[in-house]
Amino acid sequence: MMNRFLRACRKEEVDRPPVWVMRQAGRYLPEYREVRKKAGDFLTMCRTPEIAAEITLQPIRRFGLDAAIVFSDILTPLVPMGVELTFSPAPHIANPVRDPADLDRLRIPDPWRGTEFLSETLDRVGAALAEDTALIGFCGAPWTLASYLVEGVTSRTFTRVKSFAHHHPEDFDRLVNTLADAMAAYLRTQVEHGAQAVQIFDSWVGSLAAEDARRWALQPARRLLDAIADLEVPRIYFANGGAHLLHDLPEMPCEVLGLDWRVDLGRAARALPEHALQGNLDPGVLMGPDEEIRRRTLAMLESAPRSGYIANLGHGITPDVPVHAMEAFVGTVKGYRYELGIRN
Amino acid sequence: MMNRFLRACRKEEVDRPPVWVMRQAGRYLPEYREVRKKAGDFLTMCRTPEIAAEITLQPIRRFGLDAAIVFSDILTPLVPMGVELTFSPAPHIANPVRDPADLDRLRIPDPWRGTEFLSETLDRVGAALAEDTALIGFCGAPWTLASYLVEGVTSRTFTRVKSFAHHHPEDFDRLVNTLADAMAAYLRTQVEHGAQAVQIFDSWVGSLAAEDARRWALQPARRLLDAIADLEVPRIYFANGGAHLLHDLPEMPCEVLGLDWRVDLGRAARALPEHALQGNLDPGVLMGPDEEIRRRTLAMLESAPRSGYIANLGHGITPDVPVHAMEAFVGTVKGYRYELGIRN
Repeated sequence: MMNRFLRACRKEEVDRPPVWVMRQAGRYLPEYREVRKKAGDFLTMCRTPEIAAEITLQPIRRFGLDAAIVFSDILTPLVPMGVELTFSPAPHIANPVRDPADLDRLRIPDPWRGTEFLSETLDRVGAALAEDTALIGFCGAPWTLASYLVEGVTSRTFTRVKSFAHHHPEDFDRLVNTLADAMAAYLRTQVEHGAQAVQIFDSWVGSLAAEDARRWALQPARRLLDAIADLEVPRIYFANGGAHLLHDLPEMPCEVLGLDWRVDLGRAARALPEHALQGNLDPGVLMGPDEEIRRRTLAMLESAPRSGYIANLGHGITPDVPVHAMEAFVGTVKGYRYELGIRN
Repeated sequence: MMNRFLRACRKEEVDRPPVWVMRQAGRYLPEYREVRKKAGDFLTMCRTPEIAAEITLQPIRRFGLDAAIVFSDILTPLVPMGVELTFSPAPHIANPVRDPADLDRLRIPDPWRGTEFLSETLDRVGAALAEDTALIGFCGAPWTLASYLVEGVTSRTFTRVKSFAHHHPEDFDRLVNTLADAMAAYLRTQVEHGAQAVQIFDSWVGSLAAEDARRWALQPARRLLDAIADLEVPRIYFANGGAHLLHDLPEMPCEVLGLDWRVDLGRAARALPEHALQGNLDPGVLMGPDEEIRRRTLAMLESAPRSGYIANLGHGITPDVPVHAMEAFVGTVKGYRYELGIRN
């Protein structure tokens, strides 16, 4: 059978919803913690293809998921652009963008260079994956990357980046457009090395009022999505915290919209009839008993559209989730069956 | 003229929208920073009525706002309940609730005791305020307080509190109901000491999927609101991050619903025809130029309902906002006039 995940992205018929989990290769897995102990710091893990490929494959081996997502971080491609990045463990940028003159420091490698480790990781993972498991590449969305670039750290209030954008709107447009172009080239490289779908993480779009989201987040994300349309791989735009943007999302030029757990999937399907949907169980449910995880997962599957739906959490799995909770989630989806012939 | 704020809470006619700002007595004010330098730590400031009253009045003197909100913190009433709380500057609870047995440690003072400093602060502020400025009391909502009680710190993922709630649902119901009853008594004391309206801050309701929000946040908040209905003061429920809960909020037994900047006020007014609305400019807009602040404030006023509307930010003002930005915001609202006879 052709890959369930890719079929669902294209709204083709599947026997059950495909399932993968954001941050599925992560600290909740004992085998991940084992590798991490030996490898040392996070950036080194991302940059060592042998390690990154092994980590990418760990959750596939354990859970038999329908898609693998290459192990990396949305901030790593900023390094070849001239950004001084460290993790300890939170990300920190030593040379943040604080005024328009700082933008001139940002280089776009052309052709894309400086993330060869990711290409090699993709090559290795692609060679190891069975045909029924898709390989997903990814990047951060322009607004989310711009937030990190200006704030320098993970912010709660986003006052620095909003100050920059309000005071220098044209420069900020230039910044997010630059990031869109850079990430388009970055994703292109990933597809050349075997990524069969790409996800764009807009982790911080939820910090924006709709008017600002349209200009600072959705517009440059559209630019990025348009720039890779010719690659003909499914494009997923993950609008974290975007419950208030349902009326703006229909215009996004992508095959799949990723939603967080604040969005009702039934309502989303009515607002977004053209898109496949991905999500959206609260990762916090995986902190509960297995019985509750199964009940909530089934309720999610029942509320989701029958055509064009990919089961996932509504955000990354957290480090404190027990492995049996992930098993309960994945197992419930894998045990589900669409009745033959039922489509909508 | 009777107080504009109280009239708007009751959907009575006003000449212009009343305006106040969450955290209006705060670090963005030089006179606040001056007092803080002398007073030392934050809890001491809350607990010293002379200081707390002075700070409460500072933004009233400077901006002529339509309401003062007593200077305190949502966590201070947890101390007489047996919670070991410090600020440095982030809140920290040394004896968090981690399993059901810990609930037995939680005392509700009856009659409410241990926050006499707040009563005295209210007395002092009430004596100093002109009749056209309302005095607002407040507390944290049960879910938000329970989050702090279980997590012990400000969380990003709320995994501990969700784990507790999923594993011990009946005990968690008991916790949020206890907090509802305790906060009802606490607000009652505030109204006895001159609070003319009360606001319940549900700062973290946005972390919950709708199903969980209904059980863990909205149900106990309703219990709290019902318990103070006889006081006949306007009750404001601030549902921070609640854009996904618009369909559940009509049932809240309060006069006013506070909304954050992710909610479109026009859409909210259609979904919530019975309630007055309060909000909701992005505090991040106050990091921009004054001209942009005025434009966005006017746009907000135009989208808001004409009857039953209180201008505010969508969340607390941040410490880095310049005073002139607050002036631009407040001045724009105060310069606005509803055309006589227009009501909806």
